Amino acid sequence: MVLIGFHAVLSRLKTCPSSISEILISESRVDNRVNKVLETAKKNNVLVKKSSKNELEKISKNKKNNGCIAIASELERPNNLEEFFTLFSKQGLEYPPLVILDGITDPRNLGAIFRNVDATGFGGIIAPMDNSAPINDLVVRTSCGATDTVFYVRVKNLSRTIYQLQDLGYFVYGLASEAQNSLFSTNFAFPVAIVLGGEGKGLRKLTKDVCDELICVPMFGELESLNVSVASGVALFEIINQKMSIKRKTD
Amino acid sequence: MVLIGFHAVLSRLKTCPSSISEILISESRVDNRVNKVLETAKKNNVLVKKSSKNELEKISKNKKNNGCIAIASELERPNNLEEFFTLFSKQGLEYPPLVILDGITDPRNLGAIFRNVDATGFGGIIAPMDNSAPINDLVVRTSCGATDTVFYVRVKNLSRTIYQLQDLGYFVYGLASEAQNSLFSTNFAFPVAIVLGGEGKGLRKLTKDVCDELICVPMFGELESLNVSVASGVALFEIINQKMSIKRKTD
Repeated sequence: MVLIGFHAVLSRLKTCPSSISEILISESRVDNRVNKVLETAKKNNVLVKKSSKNELEKISKNKKNNGCIAIASELERPNNLEEFFTLFSKQGLEYPPLVILDGITDPRNLGAIFRNVDATGFGGIIAPMDNSAPINDLVVRTSCGATDTVFYVRVKNLSRTIYQLQDLGYFVYGLASEAQNSLFSTNFAFPVAIVLGGEGKGLRKLTKDVCDELICVPMFGELESLNVSVASGVALFEIINQKMSIKRKTD
Repeated sequence: MVLIGFHAVLSRLKTCPSSISEILISESRVDNRVNKVLETAKKNNVLVKKSSKNELEKISKNKKNNGCIAIASELERPNNLEEFFTLFSKQGLEYPPLVILDGITDPRNLGAIFRNVDATGFGGIIAPMDNSAPINDLVVRTSCGATDTVFYVRVKNLSRTIYQLQDLGYFVYGLASEAQNSLFSTNFAFPVAIVLGGEGKGLRKLTKDVCDELICVPMFGELESLNVSVASGVALFEIINQKMSIKRKTD
């Protein structure tokens, strides 16, 4: 696969440099970002080539590349929920906050949600095998490389997975614009998982039925809902703020 | 201009039906959303035509139109800060919370910011004449019609405008990833304005210098920043929650 842009390339250099076969940088760019890539690549013995603008455009199929791309292999992902939780255990993390996707098919939204999950220090993302955007170049680019920093697993059956999480003690909240309870008046129970539905359609009925609670982002204007990546950002920050304030209280 | 999609068309039907010359609906769609458009159009004496999928695609230049478009004139916008505030006065609003854009050139981000401003009940958006995305079809569509519900003015000189707002009593916060103070530990002063910088570049130095305070969305992961539309959503909801809690306290 091709990693496009400085963010995506630097992110992969940090998380898994051995998966990069080579980095190409525009010969016309000389600045701090280039230096940072050169330095990090050198430390990790990754090959860097100077390339013409035309060559970069050709390899990145004319997508905005801001002068830096990398040829890399796909990251290995966990194959099931057990392998997913093993990854966390290896990092000493038990019961991390999780995001569950139910029909996010727009690659830009998926990329932005990855970015939000990284930003809020949430643990990982669970998505179904069907009815979810694949992690392609656009998702990687929109995520600014968060597709490499956030653990991600695809599961066969979303409802069954939610039951499994509940058995582990997770409290599962579904974000639904028609819910009565506001996100901001919810005292979140931990460990927490939040389910996001696709833009327009929202959560499927089947998914709503298995959630422990449905909550909404309150709307104060004319429109009925936010963009799903914005809604998820607002929700994740509220949850993480509550989690930290609980931690502070118990410290 | 062409309004694309049910959201954008319904929004304009509510705010300024007289600006619509005709609405075109796909002849293959029969559902509640179509009925809502038909009903609202009838009430406001707006012409609706059934059209073929091909015709809709041709007029919307192959953009996703989900079966509904409208031919409409551009909305009249205020020409300067004085006219902008007159619009609010007419609605009985004094010193509404405002969003100021400093170099938002991506139409999708601009559209999503309009949507956030509507969602949080903020009053309006101020952008410079130069270095800002124009309100084109993509912005209207991404905003789900919030370009019609949110007051918007473009100004010649952003720094001078910020000074004018400060003279009116506004407290102007700049959202900057390098700021020390977290959004969530800030006790916002009202009337409030928040300045958002372009993705990647952030606020210009000139703009930072005239803000009363710089604040950041705290980042807990590997990445340095959020997408600007997500960051603005997170910030606007925090501000509006504080504003409402002040209102509740003084009630």
